Amino acid sequence: MSQTNRQILLVSRPQGPATPDNFRLVETPLAALEAGQVRVRNHYLSLDPYMRGRMNDAKSYAPPQPLNEVMLGGTVGEVVESTHRDFAVGDKVVGMFGWQEYGTSNGEGLHKVDDTHVPLSAYLGAVGMPGVTGWYGLNRIIGPKPGQTVVVSAASGAVGSVVGQLAKLAGCRAVGIAGGAEKCRYVVETLGFDACVDYKAGNLYADLKAATPQGVDGYFENVGGAVFDATLARMNPFGRIALCGMIARYDGAPTPLGHPELMLTQRLLVQGFIVTEHLDVWPEALRELGTLVAQKKLHYRESIAQGLERAPEAFIGLLKGQNFGKQLVKLI
Amino acid sequence: MSQTNRQILLVSRPQGPATPDNFRLVETPLAALEAGQVRVRNHYLSLDPYMRGRMNDAKSYAPPQPLNEVMLGGTVGEVVESTHRDFAVGDKVVGMFGWQEYGTSNGEGLHKVDDTHVPLSAYLGAVGMPGVTGWYGLNRIIGPKPGQTVVVSAASGAVGSVVGQLAKLAGCRAVGIAGGAEKCRYVVETLGFDACVDYKAGNLYADLKAATPQGVDGYFENVGGAVFDATLARMNPFGRIALCGMIARYDGAPTPLGHPELMLTQRLLVQGFIVTEHLDVWPEALRELGTLVAQKKLHYRESIAQGLERAPEAFIGLLKGQNFGKQLVKLI
Repeated sequence: MSQTNRQILLVSRPQGPATPDNFRLVETPLAALEAGQVRVRNHYLSLDPYMRGRMNDAKSYAPPQPLNEVMLGGTVGEVVESTHRDFAVGDKVVGMFGWQEYGTSNGEGLHKVDDTHVPLSAYLGAVGMPGVTGWYGLNRIIGPKPGQTVVVSAASGAVGSVVGQLAKLAGCRAVGIAGGAEKCRYVVETLGFDACVDYKAGNLYADLKAATPQGVDGYFENVGGAVFDATLARMNPFGRIALCGMIARYDGAPTPLGHPELMLTQRLLVQGFIVTEHLDVWPEALRELGTLVAQKKLHYRESIAQGLERAPEAFIGLLKGQNFGKQLVKLI
Repeated sequence: MSQTNRQILLVSRPQGPATPDNFRLVETPLAALEAGQVRVRNHYLSLDPYMRGRMNDAKSYAPPQPLNEVMLGGTVGEVVESTHRDFAVGDKVVGMFGWQEYGTSNGEGLHKVDDTHVPLSAYLGAVGMPGVTGWYGLNRIIGPKPGQTVVVSAASGAVGSVVGQLAKLAGCRAVGIAGGAEKCRYVVETLGFDACVDYKAGNLYADLKAATPQGVDGYFENVGGAVFDATLARMNPFGRIALCGMIARYDGAPTPLGHPELMLTQRLLVQGFIVTEHLDVWPEALRELGTLVAQKKLHYRESIAQGLERAPEAFIGLLKGQNFGKQLVKLI
């Protein structure tokens, strides 16, 4: 049988914000499997802010996404054909097949997962890269202590929601920053944060000050820009900042930091990190996160776009904060 | 006998740059010693950038200098009268008597020093607070490894000169940033740095790039502002920044950081610190620094103003970078 794969390629680099015409949907025939290969029908594609950085041809922590190739990205799916001894048809797997419906691999970087107690899509969110990102920044950089105040931006998102819930479990006051009253309500009522500041309400610093009466000891930074400035001004002496995302910057003009001297006067530690450079913590983090999700102690929310063709639009929406929870594309 | 003490008080807070009329010289009679006290004739007063921060009535890591009191500051001198069992006339001591010719104390915070092999004034510089500051930032934050490149700003100053020389002793490429060709020549020819960039020459980034062909692994930040921005743009992945001074900010308008996202994309560690909060390292650091000075392996230079009345002018010059090496006032 000759099957067709649908793929989305990056065909041009954005000048300013990403636009739909930076992408192109193509159909390609699937070649027959070679020996030792495995073919996966992807069920979900993960959309993440880091992808915007890869679209630029700029010096960063990772090489740029090549033009006219399938956009990179994490996927979960099911093995539909295999000549690889470690994978059988029906196995559920997580991998990095990118923006396409089928992936073919020699097995490298492909991991079997168990969706008995944890939904398959969660392996792209709370029990995947975003979850481990939150776990690492909180536990290995911030090091939360009971009674401390931890603030996280993009609090309703895939990373932020994990950070705040883990901070609560560690005995901290968890304060989120999110865009809009609906997201803030979700952060407090469903995720159980102590407070959430709506940065779109126009009183960011005053509202954050009110939500952090004891100042801020740990800050997990997902966005940069004005939110970074405001939180820096609330940091307590010896505060610790895990710098994970600068989404405010990916798509627009430079956003300077207004008061870098606060890092000195408050003797702050700031540590930028990329979770894929800390693979040693993944097994421990995934075990803990998987258990918490299975026990319903760790909640998450998903924004699901239906169909590969919707991926560009959903991705552009993500960069504008239009998603609500982990942004996925359902491919099946 | 009734002696007179000369003192300089802070009488007003600066609006913008510090000016001579923020200070006032007064003469006060010295009271007779009480039991358990020690009187010191100060030989040298240390002038340091941190004092500018204390002149403001602003939230910082330390309380503001009170108005109409003697300006704070480190001093070295000789005991001239003592009813304290641990101090005898003729002892050389280092303390925090501030901007005055005589200091009277119950002995707290006063330390005897040996000027046989180390000049007395060095206890305010390379073998004092500035030296320990350089030692701490380099050894405990940057953690230099042989072959790495370490950059330090204000490189000819009391802190910077120690940082670069210790980095050389650790097997690193040491690159200084200083203001003016004369300072840069001194940094390379006398202190033994591998290179020095003159930030006043107008090509800061290009010159720094040429001086750091392998990028920058460790950065000891003494000044902030444009120098911070330029060096941040040269940082290698996993670079480490010891944030010690923001002198560019003390006296003027806010200086934003243009590209804070580099802390993320290069996965940098930035740590602000104040050396007086790390008293545990002082004995080890002072032992090492004292040995290096006595062995003539650690060089330093002093700018000496003669007479207490010159202190305000010398201090204002220090904030403008007009000093060349450790700024002292000779009081005797």
